[in-house]
Amino acid sequence: MDDMKAFRKLGSITPGHPESHDTPGVEVTTGPLGQGIANAVGLAVAQAHSAAVFNRPGYNLFDNYTYCIFGDGCAMEGVASEAASAAGHLKLGNLICLYDDNHVSIDGDIKCAFTEDVCARFESYGWHVQHVKDGNHDLEGIEAAIRKAKEVTDKPSMIKITTTIGFGSLLQGTGGVHGNPLKADDTKQLKQAFGFNPEETFVVPQEVYDLYHRRSAEGAAKEQEWNDLFAKYAQEYPKEHADLKRRLSGELPEGWEKCLPVYSPSDPAIASRKLSEAVIEKIYDVIPEFVCGSADLTGSNNTRWKKAVDFQPPCLGIGEWSGRYFRYGVREHGMAAMMNGMAAYGTMLPAAGTFLNFVSYAAGAVRLSALSGVRVIYIATHDSIGLGEDGPTHQPIETLAHFRALPNLMVWRPADGNETSAAYYSALTAKSTPSILALTRQNLPQLEGSTIQKALKGGYVAVEAENANITIVSTGSEVGICIDAAKFLKEKHNIVARIVSMPCFEVFDTQDKEYRLSVIPDGIPSLSVEVMSTLGWERYSHEQFGLNRFGASGPYKDVYAKFEFTPEGISKRAIATVDFYKGVTVRSPINRAFQQLI
Amino acid sequence: MDDMKAFRKLGSITPGHPESHDTPGVEVTTGPLGQGIANAVGLAVAQAHSAAVFNRPGYNLFDNYTYCIFGDGCAMEGVASEAASAAGHLKLGNLICLYDDNHVSIDGDIKCAFTEDVCARFESYGWHVQHVKDGNHDLEGIEAAIRKAKEVTDKPSMIKITTTIGFGSLLQGTGGVHGNPLKADDTKQLKQAFGFNPEETFVVPQEVYDLYHRRSAEGAAKEQEWNDLFAKYAQEYPKEHADLKRRLSGELPEGWEKCLPVYSPSDPAIASRKLSEAVIEKIYDVIPEFVCGSADLTGSNNTRWKKAVDFQPPCLGIGEWSGRYFRYGVREHGMAAMMNGMAAYGTMLPAAGTFLNFVSYAAGAVRLSALSGVRVIYIATHDSIGLGEDGPTHQPIETLAHFRALPNLMVWRPADGNETSAAYYSALTAKSTPSILALTRQNLPQLEGSTIQKALKGGYVAVEAENANITIVSTGSEVGICIDAAKFLKEKHNIVARIVSMPCFEVFDTQDKEYRLSVIPDGIPSLSVEVMSTLGWERYSHEQFGLNRFGASGPYKDVYAKFEFTPEGISKRAIATVDFYKGVTVRSPINRAFQQLI
Repeated sequence: MDDMKAFRKLGSITPGHPESHDTPGVEVTTGPLGQGIANAVGLAVAQAHSAAVFNRPGYNLFDNYTYCIFGDGCAMEGVASEAASAAGHLKLGNLICLYDDNHVSIDGDIKCAFTEDVCARFESYGWHVQHVKDGNHDLEGIEAAIRKAKEVTDKPSMIKITTTIGFGSLLQGTGGVHGNPLKADDTKQLKQAFGFNPEETFVVPQEVYDLYHRRSAEGAAKEQEWNDLFAKYAQEYPKEHADLKRRLSGELPEGWEKCLPVYSPSDPAIASRKLSEAVIEKIYDVIPEFVCGSADLTGSNNTRWKKAVDFQPPCLGIGEWSGRYFRYGVREHGMAAMMNGMAAYGTMLPAAGTFLNFVSYAAGAVRLSALSGVRVIYIATHDSIGLGEDGPTHQPIETLAHFRALPNLMVWRPADGNETSAAYYSALTAKSTPSILALTRQNLPQLEGSTIQKALKGGYVAVEAENANITIVSTGSEVGICIDAAKFLKEKHNIVARIVSMPCFEVFDTQDKEYRLSVIPDGIPSLSVEVMSTLGWERYSHEQFGLNRFGASGPYKDVYAKFEFTPEGISKRAIATVDFYKGVTVRSPINRAFQQLI
Repeated sequence: MDDMKAFRKLGSITPGHPESHDTPGVEVTTGPLGQGIANAVGLAVAQAHSAAVFNRPGYNLFDNYTYCIFGDGCAMEGVASEAASAAGHLKLGNLICLYDDNHVSIDGDIKCAFTEDVCARFESYGWHVQHVKDGNHDLEGIEAAIRKAKEVTDKPSMIKITTTIGFGSLLQGTGGVHGNPLKADDTKQLKQAFGFNPEETFVVPQEVYDLYHRRSAEGAAKEQEWNDLFAKYAQEYPKEHADLKRRLSGELPEGWEKCLPVYSPSDPAIASRKLSEAVIEKIYDVIPEFVCGSADLTGSNNTRWKKAVDFQPPCLGIGEWSGRYFRYGVREHGMAAMMNGMAAYGTMLPAAGTFLNFVSYAAGAVRLSALSGVRVIYIATHDSIGLGEDGPTHQPIETLAHFRALPNLMVWRPADGNETSAAYYSALTAKSTPSILALTRQNLPQLEGSTIQKALKGGYVAVEAENANITIVSTGSEVGICIDAAKFLKEKHNIVARIVSMPCFEVFDTQDKEYRLSVIPDGIPSLSVEVMSTLGWERYSHEQFGLNRFGASGPYKDVYAKFEFTPEGISKRAIATVDFYKGVTVRSPINRAFQQLI
């Protein structure tokens, strides 16, 4: 009751919108419209997959339905459309959505904006649709519809329930009851009408307590029943039992990390999207909860291992419920929100790909990955102007800054094979933090100074140099060019540059200050080099070389040359930086006057 | 022909995807899937609106149809769903979309991801739907369907045209012909099959030239006809003629800026969303091309002037085609993409609102506003933890960093009434640049030092002080608190702080260096204060006080106090900053070693 009284107050477990990390019992963090139904699709996917993987005759470990209530606002959102279309394709018979058709959104009667036939739309997606016409009174009708929905096993179910918003209030049927508390006289008449004492507040009748306690006891008994079943399962299926138990703990199989590919400088230059594929080929067998997919860019994202089986309804003949590769379609936002649901279920570790530029389409759901602290991996290929010919409409400029500014998200931009393995190690072991792996289309050389261990610091010295004049800090595809620039600077200008690779800001920031200062030391200026917005790089460098404009369409080497991301172009900025700081006592940007709030 | 040969080469007008600012004749910049159809809805809206405003008996100045071709990938995107639903509601009979139903996307046969009934879906939105079954050969069928679509005046039309991708190629019907050039032998057999000389490349037969020249001449004649009509219109409707001519030039009515509200410090504290509403109330009458709207948050965004008429099909009885207020529904992404189309049409200046946090839902389209250089205004209210009770799911942290990193976009975060007027001045006069106005839910005092003119510099000294120890740079709702902090610092700690208000980074960056140095001078350290991600603030300050974590749900004053955005909390950081830079020769961050590429 105290929690109810603290509704929307600081520090309560009853914030303005439900948040899974704050409030026990809240399964997914929603609030932003359309996310909930897309999460529900992900939860239903996870049930279907987990049942296929773990259920055995007599052991229906996973047999739950996923219920979701959505409103008119959710129904208008594109993310909901994407997820609903995917759910129809996937024939998720375990998903039951109740559409609260109250015909009112914040702008009032939805006749001003939303006059489509929602039932027909869901039918077009392949859903089973029912309509309960009087949702204000016909509780039996709702129950019957749910029962019917359970009988339909080859389609997700949508039950449109026509209701009156704020039913019983003087403002019923209007937007006035959406977010505002009722006025005192209205509350009074409402309580009276429903048979409550109008003078009492924060009172729950004893019979409600009794009912809930009874249900709670029934739930506890069900839980005990499941635990007993699971214990029996341990006897009969010890391997599966151990696997499931481990998955639910969030721990990866012991020694899994030994399978991560390790590279040496003599290995050939490889695009980091291919390096990512090499990691996936190694881990899929060792980490059975790892599932992958793509928003219709499988061949470009390199997200599919060769022996992968698609997650599909078996009746389609192109996959299995136990399949671990997801064809999300061109539905980036729906994909991300579905992955949030899949991760929340607890038995899956979802990763999926799109171009880095189109992770922005999914921004609403990526934000909730971070806020709800789920382990989700975004494989974001074609990560810069280096994608070349597709041009500015596909070349990210602002994207890394955007996601580096998002709390509780790791943005990795590996420079070579070892760094790619490190990025995966970090992403796969971060139980409560999602990751974006920004990967190249173009080939990258294997660096002299890189190891998985070093890269796991988030930033490290790739090329050390005595009596250096400058530190050059870079990420991903530009690190190799910076190393070439250092050679050029030494040969042509007798300037000594140290090269730092900084694949992940967020991880580097967690290192102790002594280490960070050893990477970006006092005494000499530092220059950052990254082929996109310089915003935020001031945190690690005195001067920034980047691209604060849109890119260009052309072969990638031409595009890099146009914007001077060449040894010569980088050297020019390095020389300017060294000159600019001549005679100045240089303090590393690692030194700060005060700590940020965390 | 040279342009064709330069396809996807640097500097060509034939980049990887069509861009309106590069290539004459390209009306909207698309490429990212789903944007084109949503742009088309906006173009059709603009036609309907312009016809209602300018057409007169005998003067059908605006009577065009908008044609759009979309594919399976577009059909899967949520932004397309949102816009198509809106178009159906709006009964845009002037919109004709051809759905290239080739059943193949990049992952191959769409049966793996997209098995919904697209025709039924569009019918559920209220579209008129036809199907041409053999799009490879039945050109007459396509023409007949278009003719039929024109007859349907009260619904948008979708014509599903079943085709074979790469028709005639050896790879026809597969994803292999989506983005890759055909192999030599394939090109050869294809040319042969279609009656071309297989040995010739880059040849257009003379009869095609002849046809195009004929069509071009017919087009020129049509244009002359329209120009003659428009000249006659000038005689009969001089006022309307002048208005339209002016609109097409992109210039605002002379003297319009005189209507911008001006405030003095004695005026009451007002939320900047209300200040924005006050601007809208003043300008709507003076700038007739200004149209506004909201993604279902009208009452919260304060985007509607009192006398506004909704843009609606007149038959609904709730608005007019000439209406200038748009009920976009909860469709942020569709709204933004529609506005890009509306702006491209040339007769409208679209603005619309949502919460700042949900501009992220529209990120894909906001990016194209910037890339295509259209004048679109995003009215983004509830711009921080200051929105209070709705909590972290609605409180932006990363959003300003995201959009500040996006090229050719102005992000304004005004601190008071004069700055809000300046933000509108800037946004309304920026012919080729979109703007986001970040506005508060909570009240803001009118500042002593603010004027529209000063704010138009993007950053200015709000409170000057002699022998200052520190410059505090801030935006929006925090500027007033910083001014209080300066008083607190003086009284309690004898530290003198100058206060800079920096409502728009992008505009400040265009000022000459002398001015910028006068705002953030050498010699003393500067501290930034903004209640969100500090990312990017290093550009204007030595130390940053912000919020690199998610917010909290509660009354906004409690939330501000929790995170120490109070005079005391700011003072604490200011003192730390002054201490940290004691004895150090401080160079303003305005000084840079080299210029960025633009």
